[in-house]
Amino acid sequence: MDLVKEVLKGNPRAVAKAISLVENNGKDAQQLMKKIFPHTGKSVIVGITGSPGSGKSTLVDQMVEYLRKDKRKIGIVAVDPTSPFSGGAILGDRIRMMRHSLDAEVFIRSMATRGHLGGLAKATGEAIAVFEAAGKDMILVETVGVGQDEVEVVKLADVILVILIPGAGDDIQVFKAGIMEIADIFIINKADAPGADKMENQLRAMLELGMKDREIPPVVKTIATEGQGTELLIEEVQKFISKKSPEFRAQRKRRLLYWMLMDIIKDKIYDRISQSIEESDFDEYIERIYQRKTDPYSVAEEIIGIFKGKS
Amino acid sequence: MDLVKEVLKGNPRAVAKAISLVENNGKDAQQLMKKIFPHTGKSVIVGITGSPGSGKSTLVDQMVEYLRKDKRKIGIVAVDPTSPFSGGAILGDRIRMMRHSLDAEVFIRSMATRGHLGGLAKATGEAIAVFEAAGKDMILVETVGVGQDEVEVVKLADVILVILIPGAGDDIQVFKAGIMEIADIFIINKADAPGADKMENQLRAMLELGMKDREIPPVVKTIATEGQGTELLIEEVQKFISKKSPEFRAQRKRRLLYWMLMDIIKDKIYDRISQSIEESDFDEYIERIYQRKTDPYSVAEEIIGIFKGKS
Repeated sequence: MDLVKEVLKGNPRAVAKAISLVENNGKDAQQLMKKIFPHTGKSVIVGITGSPGSGKSTLVDQMVEYLRKDKRKIGIVAVDPTSPFSGGAILGDRIRMMRHSLDAEVFIRSMATRGHLGGLAKATGEAIAVFEAAGKDMILVETVGVGQDEVEVVKLADVILVILIPGAGDDIQVFKAGIMEIADIFIINKADAPGADKMENQLRAMLELGMKDREIPPVVKTIATEGQGTELLIEEVQKFISKKSPEFRAQRKRRLLYWMLMDIIKDKIYDRISQSIEESDFDEYIERIYQRKTDPYSVAEEIIGIFKGKS
Repeated sequence: MDLVKEVLKGNPRAVAKAISLVENNGKDAQQLMKKIFPHTGKSVIVGITGSPGSGKSTLVDQMVEYLRKDKRKIGIVAVDPTSPFSGGAILGDRIRMMRHSLDAEVFIRSMATRGHLGGLAKATGEAIAVFEAAGKDMILVETVGVGQDEVEVVKLADVILVILIPGAGDDIQVFKAGIMEIADIFIINKADAPGADKMENQLRAMLELGMKDREIPPVVKTIATEGQGTELLIEEVQKFISKKSPEFRAQRKRRLLYWMLMDIIKDKIYDRISQSIEESDFDEYIERIYQRKTDPYSVAEEIIGIFKGKS
């Protein structure tokens, strides 16, 4: 089949194949991405972040459920494929999400750890691009709110949702510094748990104190396990999107493209360095650094020199 | 003062200054690092990871307390400067840690988010190097067990501790896939909480099932808030270190050097690209990508071409 054509038609098998190709990150992937790219940029990207255990996946599932009633086409990028240790809560979430996997218009991509060099912005940007080309109306990017790159990625969405949960040990309510400041909409999930009202008051007080220069973001209470609050949440998301100027959205999309470009440059340079230097030579460099006969800074300069010398 | 000489003497003010320099990541920093590097590689590096709320900082504090009775010189690298939202638990931890900040032989570096391009391996490796040059016996690297890069960093330690906590919502017990497999020692913290024994049994059963090909890691129960279990934990750490062959340790140290080198190369290339391309030209590239007149893959190739063309 003509893969690009089928992706553009929204053929689920083609989308799956395109995403596999992109995950493997070979030459074919780049050819595909170049062809797909002109057809991207039109979906609404919703970033959703919260601590582990805040109910992100369940909430995403409920949002999908609701949006599907409206026949909206959905792509999901799950950036934090965490592994459950005890108990099946997360496993349960994944299974709940999978009920939508029989629905051809809902597509979930769990982002595998791509190692240190892949670049999360590139991987996320490419998954988003495939979904956009396939005509998804809305793309939900779900990330955990604690890792460095994970937070950077969610900042590139059109609208950023930050999930909090009441009580249950205050120390769980911990985010990467700066994440409270980037929320466009706050969600208090598990709103039936003790302390939810108290928490809402605290949050509102904090926002009123802290956000003197800009509008206070809305706070939506949800009980994701029962689907309560989802409708209101979607309304707030749509309100936010329609309220913002096209320039505001363009600005965020440019940031995503910027980070994606930088990741692609680094990726390409890494590939070429790997090609221009033999693995045995590389091991030799590391061994000399390990023995303190040289240092990584000098070696880096040497390797860049070799890279620049070759075509 | 002669900064390198004073760092090598372990002068706390010099160490502080060196770390500030390295954080600012300028030309001076690299000169300093080149001079410091030959004096590194001798400390024991302990990686400690666990979910937010698992008591990492309190445990690290207790370990420091214990090790200081033995006059051991300690460096701490805190890779996850999370910001507390409600409640002061984490703030409390930081303050508890600060009681050691009056102790000249204990040095804490909180790793600021260095943006998308800094490289966590480089930043961590440099902080470790300064501490090693300053003669620290043991360097504790504390990271949250959920972010992608954060997990990569902890894997580079000589010994890896993974903290679990009993009960309290099983879904908090969530790690980046693969982290259970890299633990050299497991810690069940908050061991006085309900479900601790059940959890220990579950963990041991899981380890016996899963680790057929290698030795089962020890499981240590702690109550970090009361200092219970710290002594046993330190003993297990020392047992692990002395049991492993020098080649095993060398292997891990080479991995740290490898990732650090790759980060330095990327950092240098990024610097040079920023220098060889005008910011306005860069904005122009992004704008053309945004308007879908081109794609990031083609632009990346163009930019690498420009970079290779200039000296």
